[in-house]
Amino acid sequence: MDNLFKPQHLRDFMTEIFLSFDLPHEDSLLATDVLAYSDEHGIDSHGVARLKTYYDLLKAGKINPKPKMRVVREKTSVSTVDGDNGLGLVIGPKCMEMAMDKAGKHGSGWVAVRNTNHYGAAGYYPIMALPKNMIGLSMTNSSKGVAPFNGKEKMLGTNPIAMAFPTEKEPPVVVDFASSTVAYGKVEIAKRKGEKVPLGWCIDKEGRATTVPDAMMEGGALLPLGGTKEGSGHKGFCLATMVDVLTAVLSGANWGPFATPFAIHVAPPERKVGKGIGHFFGAWDIDGFIEVDEFKRNMDDWIKTMRATPPLPGAEKVMIPGDPERLAYAKRIKNGIPLNGEVIKSLEIISRETGIPLPEHTLSSGDG
Amino acid sequence: MDNLFKPQHLRDFMTEIFLSFDLPHEDSLLATDVLAYSDEHGIDSHGVARLKTYYDLLKAGKINPKPKMRVVREKTSVSTVDGDNGLGLVIGPKCMEMAMDKAGKHGSGWVAVRNTNHYGAAGYYPIMALPKNMIGLSMTNSSKGVAPFNGKEKMLGTNPIAMAFPTEKEPPVVVDFASSTVAYGKVEIAKRKGEKVPLGWCIDKEGRATTVPDAMMEGGALLPLGGTKEGSGHKGFCLATMVDVLTAVLSGANWGPFATPFAIHVAPPERKVGKGIGHFFGAWDIDGFIEVDEFKRNMDDWIKTMRATPPLPGAEKVMIPGDPERLAYAKRIKNGIPLNGEVIKSLEIISRETGIPLPEHTLSSGDG
Repeated sequence: MDNLFKPQHLRDFMTEIFLSFDLPHEDSLLATDVLAYSDEHGIDSHGVARLKTYYDLLKAGKINPKPKMRVVREKTSVSTVDGDNGLGLVIGPKCMEMAMDKAGKHGSGWVAVRNTNHYGAAGYYPIMALPKNMIGLSMTNSSKGVAPFNGKEKMLGTNPIAMAFPTEKEPPVVVDFASSTVAYGKVEIAKRKGEKVPLGWCIDKEGRATTVPDAMMEGGALLPLGGTKEGSGHKGFCLATMVDVLTAVLSGANWGPFATPFAIHVAPPERKVGKGIGHFFGAWDIDGFIEVDEFKRNMDDWIKTMRATPPLPGAEKVMIPGDPERLAYAKRIKNGIPLNGEVIKSLEIISRETGIPLPEHTLSSGDG
Repeated sequence: MDNLFKPQHLRDFMTEIFLSFDLPHEDSLLATDVLAYSDEHGIDSHGVARLKTYYDLLKAGKINPKPKMRVVREKTSVSTVDGDNGLGLVIGPKCMEMAMDKAGKHGSGWVAVRNTNHYGAAGYYPIMALPKNMIGLSMTNSSKGVAPFNGKEKMLGTNPIAMAFPTEKEPPVVVDFASSTVAYGKVEIAKRKGEKVPLGWCIDKEGRATTVPDAMMEGGALLPLGGTKEGSGHKGFCLATMVDVLTAVLSGANWGPFATPFAIHVAPPERKVGKGIGHFFGAWDIDGFIEVDEFKRNMDDWIKTMRATPPLPGAEKVMIPGDPERLAYAKRIKNGIPLNGEVIKSLEIISRETGIPLPEHTLSSGDG
């Protein structure tokens, strides 16, 4: 059974941990805000569940707690930033701000980032653009876990793409998805429950389609969105390609199978082809294209039109991208954030080592 | 059995047809070049096979043969263009040029287009950016054919996205794919052959998964990329959403189910929410991010690395986005372009009505 934590208590704990590594106060709050966004919005795989990995990497001196970001190249609406091996959770929001500054001045702004690390949930960043009446975009590459279409070895990360669109009265449209059929975490969850996974999610080490989580985890690979030939798996490979090139080849980061692993005990990739991993941030100023009010009114209309689609027999109603996260948020802010025993165990280790007490928590009576 | 046409003969025929509607000479050549790109690269659904529809729409006065494009809004690196109801095949390349001009000056350039029509294959446009050492992007919305995830009615077009990345010695990487699992044309082909289609491609008019082409064509719908819940069909819906908003809501075109149909005998949508359909073009100047030579060298390395992935058992080798079209091009430029009886019949009608002779052709001995 899960345990429930108060959102602010979890935030305070995370901030204390970051401060213990001498991160500047502002940076500790920023990194906390990015991780808390995931926990508070039901994206369990990208929040405090990963604190232990950030902690291990900081402790081992593999991530720089006080990075000096610098612009290495620039041209009006675009630039490349070197993240000085800082936390993606800190470098990310700062680079998204830079992209928005450029968009405010020049109609659009684009920042490619190299020498950075895992940046949490991709959706956090485009949402930053909404109060400025901009459309935001973020992408990141990540360590290999996905096979290219027709290939049998891991060559690409789950390379997510996220965009957010402002609205008038309706909630904003927030798109955030990995370019693989599912994230690694979904296969992990099936394994924990002793369940099989659908065909099309992954292959084993021989490249055979498999429904057995262990078969994927022991030398197999996830499949790109679409999965098989019949499902148009080449399209997921196209998406992963776009993300890998824009985030890593364009910025000078490690691309494809050479992306830096987000783990402490994994051997480094056989080649180094750039610096750290890569992100790509962008913003379009709506005012440069159309009256902002007209755009927002039409977005509301668009949302209502899509919601009115009759649902498939037996299916839930048609939801808008961003709805599931908003529903989770409403519930979790009220009831607390459910963490499972494994995650709590990882936080207990951190607590023991740092002397920072674990926040109080209560047994959950449901799914939180 | 297919008939083979010489590429230049088909081009000349198309140009003559466009000229017969008093399109300016330059515009006729441009529209021809866009359609010929598809035929010459094996994208049979988007080339001369659609000439009859453009012809019908021009003949009925539904498309403006002499549009006066105008910039309706602008801000340094972005702008919105009204296509004056011209052919997308003419408005498209001109707007892509505008995006590249902006990218040359400001590092990136973005043009949203409204009041335009079907623009052929999405991949044509980003390829224009390659000789300028830019990364190109194009998207378009299109008339409804695809259900939103969990919905049972057509609400979105197949809304494709295309990008192209320059290289040094390797061929360029060209991504071009619809956000539905498959294009309508793939189901049509199965129907013609009397074959079933895989589950996950489409639903019937009751929203039930179907493998019968007719069941989709008679009131059913295509499914977004990913198809089912297990296949992560919500991700295809996210993609279609991104394309619909950037092309149509942002430009002031008809979005979602209200996109103008690309056909002469289809009733207009029940509501008009903008002008025509919408495109979105973009370009990033690589030189604004990184040394162009370094980028291209790394792209070559990226391509070789991906190609070296061991293939799935029994699968073809791993191909790079753009490979299938290049293979088709090499074959077709040499052997000719294969057209089936149905397409030839449509060209014969045009020929008869205009008095422009159909180009000579020979029976194909294979697949062309």
